[in-house]
Amino acid sequence: MEIITAGQYYLVYNAFSFTIAAMAAATIFFWFGRSQVAPAYKTAMTITGLVTFIAFYHYFRIFESWDSAFDVVNGQVEVTGEIFNQTYRYVDWLLTVPLLLIELILVMRLTKSETVSKSLTLGGAAALMILLGYPGEVSGGIDGTRLLWGALSMLPFLYIVYTLYVGLGKAIQTQPEGVRGLIGLARNVTVLSWFFYPIVYFAPFVLELDGGTATTAIEVGYTIADIVAKAGFGVLIYMIAIRKSEAEAGQTS
Amino acid sequence: MEIITAGQYYLVYNAFSFTIAAMAAATIFFWFGRSQVAPAYKTAMTITGLVTFIAFYHYFRIFESWDSAFDVVNGQVEVTGEIFNQTYRYVDWLLTVPLLLIELILVMRLTKSETVSKSLTLGGAAALMILLGYPGEVSGGIDGTRLLWGALSMLPFLYIVYTLYVGLGKAIQTQPEGVRGLIGLARNVTVLSWFFYPIVYFAPFVLELDGGTATTAIEVGYTIADIVAKAGFGVLIYMIAIRKSEAEAGQTS
Repeated sequence: MEIITAGQYYLVYNAFSFTIAAMAAATIFFWFGRSQVAPAYKTAMTITGLVTFIAFYHYFRIFESWDSAFDVVNGQVEVTGEIFNQTYRYVDWLLTVPLLLIELILVMRLTKSETVSKSLTLGGAAALMILLGYPGEVSGGIDGTRLLWGALSMLPFLYIVYTLYVGLGKAIQTQPEGVRGLIGLARNVTVLSWFFYPIVYFAPFVLELDGGTATTAIEVGYTIADIVAKAGFGVLIYMIAIRKSEAEAGQTS
Repeated sequence: MEIITAGQYYLVYNAFSFTIAAMAAATIFFWFGRSQVAPAYKTAMTITGLVTFIAFYHYFRIFESWDSAFDVVNGQVEVTGEIFNQTYRYVDWLLTVPLLLIELILVMRLTKSETVSKSLTLGGAAALMILLGYPGEVSGGIDGTRLLWGALSMLPFLYIVYTLYVGLGKAIQTQPEGVRGLIGLARNVTVLSWFFYPIVYFAPFVLELDGGTATTAIEVGYTIADIVAKAGFGVLIYMIAIRKSEAEAGQTS
């Protein structure tokens, strides 16, 4: 069994607790925001809050699982025999990553057919990406299995990033001038925060980490990425929805 | 006692946790959606959310029951002596399946007498179908008892599927043109997702599964069917309600 220090154990423990609070707070913020945006953007705000709500639920489960997997006795970490369930992250992503993409598509208010087709292709590619990454993550080793599935998972990943960058790049030009910069920023934050995930996934190879250090780096890394990609990104979606609501109210009055 | 592997145990465990999150998220989505549809469709949205809310409650119970029925010790699954309560599923269906049919009838906005008569006959047949399937499910064996009750349960099942297909098929022709395709899709998703249940029920006979493999196939199969038939179907009901609200607002203004 891998060895983890007490310092590493508590670092991960506190990072998880921080994230429970951050995701719950973000959820409430986004759902209150529904009443402040135009009807066309209410669904985007609902879904933005659902993403952080689902993450809140899973971080609560992850925290409980981490807590029950280890005991600290006289400053030494002992394993209890219960496993730390890494699958919660993948289950979370399977639900939240397609929703994240849909919230970005919704706030852009494309035509109905474009909204449906982009939601299906990007959402489907996201689900595929997560299903392919999973076998490598739970194989347990920092070895060829992790490398192979990670590489396969990168194919839909690169497709999504490319589509967001190029496909949405064109759509940005049709947005009201006042929000073009903000939507461009949302797109860049999405892409940058997304690159965090494969970096964390492959970091143990590059840095030649193993055991407790690899576990700590992976858990803290994914946690930071989740906060940026879900709560941070959601704040941008909220700002876009507010600005577009204001701009459109100005046009009709 | 049947033998289940650690991999099968965790697959079912994570599928249940996934479903808790998915049903909770769907419930919130549908109830927020109430404010975005015309008054005539608010009851349909309320009930759509009730179906996923009731499922959320039962999947929480099912998850807890699964968790307490087994222990994993050194990678081996041991039974704790507490039983895994399969009846939760049937209690859930007894409540949710009649409601599911009513939400489809409501969103079609038939005449009052048609709404009442279709709700009673379809809802009643759904309750009968579930009551007849139950003795076979809890008999525990993959044998004649399961086969007999399953076959009896198929009679109301086929009546419902026939009524949905033919009866609602006619009613679809009276719907606004813009939503006919979507209502037809909702009807087809209902019928297809419904066929998943008898397939799961009878799969152990056809595939000659037993023990842990049969249990895993049944639990994961029903879980996928529930997500499609409740949350997926609900999204279609929501889209129909939104489109019809928009179309009707256009007519009156």
